[in-house]
Amino acid sequence: MVVRTLKWIGGIDGCLEIIDQRKLPGEYKTLRCTNVKQLYDAIKTLAVRGAPAIGVAGGYGAVLALKDISTKAFAYRRAPFDKLRAGRGGRREKYKINSTCSAASAVEILKRDCAYLASSRPTAVNLRWAIERIVKCAENSAAETLYELRKVVLKEANDICREDVEMCRKIGVNGVRFIKNGSAILTHCNAGALATAGQGTALSVLYEAKKRGKRFKVYVDETRPLLQGSRLTAWELKQAGIDVTVICDNMAGALMSEGKIDMVITGADRIAANGDAANKIGTYSLSVLAKAHPPRRTAAGEISPRADGIPFYIAAPSSTFDLKTKSGKDIPIEQRPADEVRFCGSKQVAPDEVKVYNPAFDVTPAKNISAIITERGVIDRPNARKVQRHFANSV
Amino acid sequence: MVVRTLKWIGGIDGCLEIIDQRKLPGEYKTLRCTNVKQLYDAIKTLAVRGAPAIGVAGGYGAVLALKDISTKAFAYRRAPFDKLRAGRGGRREKYKINSTCSAASAVEILKRDCAYLASSRPTAVNLRWAIERIVKCAENSAAETLYELRKVVLKEANDICREDVEMCRKIGVNGVRFIKNGSAILTHCNAGALATAGQGTALSVLYEAKKRGKRFKVYVDETRPLLQGSRLTAWELKQAGIDVTVICDNMAGALMSEGKIDMVITGADRIAANGDAANKIGTYSLSVLAKAHPPRRTAAGEISPRADGIPFYIAAPSSTFDLKTKSGKDIPIEQRPADEVRFCGSKQVAPDEVKVYNPAFDVTPAKNISAIITERGVIDRPNARKVQRHFANSV
Repeated sequence: MVVRTLKWIGGIDGCLEIIDQRKLPGEYKTLRCTNVKQLYDAIKTLAVRGAPAIGVAGGYGAVLALKDISTKAFAYRRAPFDKLRAGRGGRREKYKINSTCSAASAVEILKRDCAYLASSRPTAVNLRWAIERIVKCAENSAAETLYELRKVVLKEANDICREDVEMCRKIGVNGVRFIKNGSAILTHCNAGALATAGQGTALSVLYEAKKRGKRFKVYVDETRPLLQGSRLTAWELKQAGIDVTVICDNMAGALMSEGKIDMVITGADRIAANGDAANKIGTYSLSVLAKAHPPRRTAAGEISPRADGIPFYIAAPSSTFDLKTKSGKDIPIEQRPADEVRFCGSKQVAPDEVKVYNPAFDVTPAKNISAIITERGVIDRPNARKVQRHFANSV
Repeated sequence: MVVRTLKWIGGIDGCLEIIDQRKLPGEYKTLRCTNVKQLYDAIKTLAVRGAPAIGVAGGYGAVLALKDISTKAFAYRRAPFDKLRAGRGGRREKYKINSTCSAASAVEILKRDCAYLASSRPTAVNLRWAIERIVKCAENSAAETLYELRKVVLKEANDICREDVEMCRKIGVNGVRFIKNGSAILTHCNAGALATAGQGTALSVLYEAKKRGKRFKVYVDETRPLLQGSRLTAWELKQAGIDVTVICDNMAGALMSEGKIDMVITGADRIAANGDAANKIGTYSLSVLAKAHPPRRTAAGEISPRADGIPFYIAAPSSTFDLKTKSGKDIPIEQRPADEVRFCGSKQVAPDEVKVYNPAFDVTPAKNISAIITERGVIDRPNARKVQRHFANSV
């Protein structure tokens, strides 16, 4: 079964249940966030991660913010975390804080709580986007009472979640034709159910193939330094009953040379207007290695039409496209802390004194990509013209 | 300063001092092996590792075996480990065990102890080779007393060590011309001083360049799963004052695409008659990535003569060649335990239930190798004919 990273439980007085990804793969635990502070901590400490999943969580965070207001024990429960936000001895709550609070006052509180929530992952674009959408919706709503406002906001949060689930499903449906029976697929990092509210992006294609009874096996790069491949992707594919094998990142080339890989599929963090795609560090190397190896012949001697290498696919929602960015050269690459590489868990694996280079992403040029799969369709052999057409056609 | 992995201290009553590699890079400690049992444990638990280094250690192990015999407390000290070897309640020592022991009886004890020592790493070819050489030397010696025999064996062990040091130095001298001023060099795993009695093989080239005042910087792949690159290579290069930066294995391609790598140099575990080279898993991927990237232009606009990619060198002693193996296809690839990948230190990083593929080596085809550097010279763009000529010319 495909796992569900997050789930709203109950109505407007409900809570957000998430899979605690900090404990995977050693331990499977869910975490219930019943107020804004708990959700803030969950996002900040990566209990929930993955751009789309954080966005959906942010939407439900707004529901929790309004619930906090109407809770009887609100003043008492809020105090510690108001203090936290305002610094030691911060100002006292000035809003009317009971169930008779007006919708207008509630929107003010909502805005402040949402800003706080957004600060949990300052660079997460989806989180900001979801929160802005919710706040706008609350501001524009005709709700006059807090109760009405809460209903409006919960509906909007549910919509964000439903749209994400649907987006994932469509990516899977659009990409499923690339999965041949009996093929072996390599993936990198985690572009799966654990990163979205639905069944993921790259992994959605695999889940969709599984649903249709196709037989295939998956190799997962462990994805140093944070090991999202071995910790998360391997775990969620296993939960769905898919045949999965973990390899170290440096083994992909050897596997390809042995004819063990038929296609590569990954997600993307940002795609430029010409089809160049930024994704987790290591994706670029895979694309070069794929291009350098001829695809494997099938049992029937049939050979893939792409004679220039093993097919390499990117699966991502269209929101990943940044059409203002002309090409991959213009995508800034985030440098991450050295200690991510220097330590593995608590074990030190590189000397203190040596330098570490730790870019979070690399850029795969469009010419190395066989196709980009989005919820709107497939861009075959992407380039600037085709990307433009993809958006022109389908809006 | 280039570190020395092992050092014999004192004369025939001396001991073997080794750098305890199990504690690196967190802690620098040396370990003194004063008897065969201690050395056996040191080799078995990887306190000393690297094929040439283990070979040299094995030679000194023979010295320790003879020293054990002449030690007054011999019978007492030997008992526990004789028992260990013979199983519980094993037979008592039957040799005359004091300083008047004859050379002939001593050779018998030596053989048995050496067989025991060799069992510490059953697949280590160099260890067996060194031990067989020492035993043969002892058998053929004209020594009549234990004291004379000990002198003969110590001399042979010193010879093995000296030859290894000299072999390393010559590889460095032969390869140094490939290091250009201002260049950035990528290496993988540990083919350095920590793996030999001398200054290593691939890293010897770097040490030799440093000695000659060349300026360069080194990137080191961390080399999953056992992280010999970040744990050992980074540490020893740092000790020698070389500018070193650790990267994860999946970052090499991105670095090359950014023009940050001018050459790649690695060691080898076994080289076939046609120049195909087996080395630590990940080496093959590097060779493909190197070939796919044009070499960087120098400041003067000058471009390397090898326009087909970043130069990729293998540095290894000629003993690494296995001329009976025709090509890389015939080199068997050892599969290592899944838990090497599943755990990092004590931290579990992949689920229990998923499969793991963990080959120890991969094979880089000769066509991806710019040159093989040995102590006998350089084989430029290796192939079967050139390898044959290399050995014909220089013996």
